[in-house]
Amino acid sequence: MSMSEPAPASTTGDTVAADEGMHAHHGYIADKTAYLKRLKRIEGQARGLQNMVDDEKYCIDILTQISAMTSALESVALGLLNDHLNHCVVEAVAEGGPVAEQKLKEATDAIARLVRS
Amino acid sequence: MSMSEPAPASTTGDTVAADEGMHAHHGYIADKTAYLKRLKRIEGQARGLQNMVDDEKYCIDILTQISAMTSALESVALGLLNDHLNHCVVEAVAEGGPVAEQKLKEATDAIARLVRS
Amino acid sequence: MSMSEPAPASTTGDTVAADEGMHAHHGYIADKTAYLKRLKRIEGQARGLQNMVDDEKYCIDILTQISAMTSALESVALGLLNDHLNHCVVEAVAEGGPVAEQKLKEATDAIARLVRS
Amino acid sequence: MSMSEPAPASTTGDTVAADEGMHAHHGYIADKTAYLKRLKRIEGQARGLQNMVDDEKYCIDILTQISAMTSALESVALGLLNDHLNHCVVEAVAEGGPVAEQKLKEATDAIARLVRS
Repeated sequence: MSMSEPAPASTTGDTVAADEGMHAHHGYIADKTAYLKRLKRIEGQARGLQNMVDDEKYCIDILTQISAMTSALESVALGLLNDHLNHCVVEAVAEGGPVAEQKLKEATDAIARLVRS
Repeated sequence: MSMSEPAPASTTGDTVAADEGMHAHHGYIADKTAYLKRLKRIEGQARGLQNMVDDEKYCIDILTQISAMTSALESVALGLLNDHLNHCVVEAVAEGGPVAEQKLKEATDAIARLVRS
Repeated sequence: MSMSEPAPASTTGDTVAADEGMHAHHGYIADKTAYLKRLKRIEGQARGLQNMVDDEKYCIDILTQISAMTSALESVALGLLNDHLNHCVVEAVAEGGPVAEQKLKEATDAIARLVRS
Repeated sequence: MSMSEPAPASTTGDTVAADEGMHAHHGYIADKTAYLKRLKRIEGQARGLQNMVDDEKYCIDILTQISAMTSALESVALGLLNDHLNHCVVEAVAEGGPVAEQKLKEATDAIARLVRS
């Protein structure tokens, strides 16, 4: 979703809750279809790993698959983080105040988890 | 599982085992059922991520899930590597010669990929 | 240190400040003394590693030291990144325009390098 | 190579053997001079980082340096691990018994720390 798209019902405000209903879309994801496709492929890799283990394929080949899957996951995470910084964080910073600080703290905590995982 | 154990029935229904000879199954996996269960859970996490993206859940929560999934994958990889070292590599070393060297080279290359992925 | 603070005297004795104009010091570092102390300790660890290798200490102990040092470095990086996001990026976002975009792009690229290194 | 073995002298051509007693050299390091050179460079990078922080260089440039240093450290760790597997672990496995198991356990624990750090 691009920033010019109809309102992702401001992350702030906040009468948002009332009309957001059960899904509370945050609207920060640049290209949802592309992410879903990548995650679908990752799900397929997880299934493929089960077959490899079940068939007792050569361990090194399984490890290679796991490394590929981990890289694919990291790449999705970095893309989402980029979208998040460009959307939610930019918006919060523009408004300023404690929300901005909190968003930045959240983001750096998430980055720390990614770096360490 | 040692190499002399009976080959596990393949759940993929193929008949590869019949002509694969003595190396059909590598038999190094200590507890196949446990690995399959963990990988099944990882597959479920991949599906959960798709739902989160589809519902545009809060980015930070998605990133937290990805970190958890990456850690779970790494943990599986480390377990398999341990089984591999204790089984295939130990066996190859016992036999000695170029096969042992090749197995160790393969293992350290796989470790490098894990460390860097 | 905020940007309005007087520029710290350079310990390297160079006279760069004089001609660097207003951007001489980026001034985003929250607690320079603390970072310098941590980096000094990391330098000491690097020297300690040389002694361990020179004395041919047990490999596993050397690897443990390297892991500790890598974690210490990552921790410094995450701290600096946090300072950077809270200072330079927030400032650029407040100004808006292409500079903000560029700063965010730079930051996410740096995060990607950290995650993958 | 066990501690009671004659000196490795081999790779470095030195005559370390004579005083090995007190330092318990493990002699598994394939090319000590090369490792020392790499660690010296890493120590220099740690010093360079202090200068960068002291001069308040641009944060992104500091982060790039830290990523490079982390990669260099990981590379040293992977080299040492390789030497260790090819030397100490192979030897322990050849002897068999509980020592072999313990060495492999130690090695996989060290690998886990590297993957997670």
